Amino acid sequence: MSALPAGATIGILGGGQLGRMMASAAAQLGFDVSIYCPEQDCPAARVAASHAIGAYSDVDALLAWAKHCDVVTYEFENVPVEAARALIEAGICVRPGAQPLEVSQDRLVEKSFLRSCGIETADFAEVNSAEEIAPPIAAFGGRGILKTRRDGYDGKGQVRLEAEDDFEAAHKALANAPCILEAMIPFEREVSVIVARDAVGDTLCYDLPRNEHVNGILKRSIVPSGLREDVADRAAKAAETLAHAMDYVGVLALEFFVLEDGTLLANEFAPRVHNSGHWTPEACATGQFEQHIRAVAGWPLGPVTRYHDVEMLNLLGDEALVPPEVLSADGVLTLYGKRDAKPGRKMGHLVRRRS
Amino acid sequence: MSALPAGATIGILGGGQLGRMMASAAAQLGFDVSIYCPEQDCPAARVAASHAIGAYSDVDALLAWAKHCDVVTYEFENVPVEAARALIEAGICVRPGAQPLEVSQDRLVEKSFLRSCGIETADFAEVNSAEEIAPPIAAFGGRGILKTRRDGYDGKGQVRLEAEDDFEAAHKALANAPCILEAMIPFEREVSVIVARDAVGDTLCYDLPRNEHVNGILKRSIVPSGLREDVADRAAKAAETLAHAMDYVGVLALEFFVLEDGTLLANEFAPRVHNSGHWTPEACATGQFEQHIRAVAGWPLGPVTRYHDVEMLNLLGDEALVPPEVLSADGVLTLYGKRDAKPGRKMGHLVRRRS
Repeated sequence: MSALPAGATIGILGGGQLGRMMASAAAQLGFDVSIYCPEQDCPAARVAASHAIGAYSDVDALLAWAKHCDVVTYEFENVPVEAARALIEAGICVRPGAQPLEVSQDRLVEKSFLRSCGIETADFAEVNSAEEIAPPIAAFGGRGILKTRRDGYDGKGQVRLEAEDDFEAAHKALANAPCILEAMIPFEREVSVIVARDAVGDTLCYDLPRNEHVNGILKRSIVPSGLREDVADRAAKAAETLAHAMDYVGVLALEFFVLEDGTLLANEFAPRVHNSGHWTPEACATGQFEQHIRAVAGWPLGPVTRYHDVEMLNLLGDEALVPPEVLSADGVLTLYGKRDAKPGRKMGHLVRRRS
Repeated sequence: MSALPAGATIGILGGGQLGRMMASAAAQLGFDVSIYCPEQDCPAARVAASHAIGAYSDVDALLAWAKHCDVVTYEFENVPVEAARALIEAGICVRPGAQPLEVSQDRLVEKSFLRSCGIETADFAEVNSAEEIAPPIAAFGGRGILKTRRDGYDGKGQVRLEAEDDFEAAHKALANAPCILEAMIPFEREVSVIVARDAVGDTLCYDLPRNEHVNGILKRSIVPSGLREDVADRAAKAAETLAHAMDYVGVLALEFFVLEDGTLLANEFAPRVHNSGHWTPEACATGQFEQHIRAVAGWPLGPVTRYHDVEMLNLLGDEALVPPEVLSADGVLTLYGKRDAKPGRKMGHLVRRRS
């Protein structure tokens, strides 16, 4: 596919805040955007030119929608792999493709894939029953984190375990789902690399943010991260390697634990724009949403020059119930247009200059 | 009206690029946007939550639409005054109101109003027939510009005259419409003030741009303007005076001719966001589109701090037919999503850093 001209239609699978911000970035470049998602009233559709409502598993509906799109991308990693494959088989250009979904949807496949790329991770073991928990717990020093292989996010679908815990109860709390047990990492900080790769294979990495999580949910990203330059360079190289390995087109985020000695252990990656990159539109020459759209449209990447130091604060649940005109006095405010401020739900974010 | 909460609906009269950029700025703040315009497929509706199609003169349709809006604003100055008044009489909050339309739609009323505010303009005379042209031409030194009182924009509806010209033909070329004759100004440069005034009467002015026109159409805006500080301060004061005089809520642009000696002569004002302020989202803490939305939503204004020097280049007609991925290598690109690149039509703009 050659570079899309202005006026072309970019299809986005998913109607949440990431789709909303991608849609706005696409519109600024002159594209029309069409959203496909199951919800009638979703944040992304309210800023898009058109909206098809359907299940992600409804391949007929997906195909009927996608034939009006010049390229299809996604804003979340749980798009069914079969749906993406059906679109591709029908000749639709899907970027970044089906493989990144397949790999990132299953923690066991994901961690194995990262290692196959030469990217270190925490030790892990496959766990399909409570009986399989004890040996790796012992091997990992008496503790570990049991995580479902699929469908976990923002700290959901996981439980911390110590040798004396009731493994059966723990596995039952995760619906006896196929799991992996991961070694606990004595990390000194968490960082992420936001990398973009275009259709001809060129890559660019943003300066990496340091990420602070509370209850498993990202609360704050700070740039610069304070990471040693050689460590940051290794992290960026790893993300580029991962992107190349999947012939990835678009923006991808790779999260790392950093140990005291500078060791980097990859945690997971997201085949999409990422919460820890929400500061980029305010601080960089090209924001991550525009960058993703440029890549999937077959355009060359824009420069990722960062102009100033910055932090991004997530507004979770009722933090967004503070009057927005008050919130916005503290930085550049983005609200996602969600109707219910459920506890812990990502409702918006604030970006503050730090220099 | 108190400050609108996130999720409130902002109604915009007009579906062009200014409405499109206002709609995107409103969405970032968490608002829903509804567009009212006569066209089925307009740039603004493609980034808005809803769209009503109707004539601006159809008061019943306007009222039916506006009752779903928490506030109504406009993106162009030719909204019929009677339509705005009908909405206001029906209890709809219309910002910046009907008076700015009434004043800015008629060059004679506009220039008279500016003078009544103590703001200097070029000399002008009312002209209702070809016979009335000769005396002011003589008084203005043998030359002048004949302009229709209404419906002129981007250099349309005007003709330059010298004493020996055929006044009858000139007036006929303007459909014998009611006109004003303006003295030609030997200006050294053109500048504009983008001023914002909020619902409690606080004002903020952006650093003023120097504007370069080609064939009556804005081609480039440059900031800083190079204007002497005391002259720039006088221009800003004039714009604030004008905003206060109309109890204006929103963003307004006042254009000036600047003479060699620093004399400022106001040319016209636009009761809306303005092409010469398109650099503000990239260069300032708060862009003009967000600022307008903040004001009409009853929020306090955001800071207008400018972070770097900048220029804005309009992309007219087939200048936008250059592949957008090429254009965007030269700065931050915004395309308006217009379907036809007619000669001279504003299709998009580029913003470049200058420091």
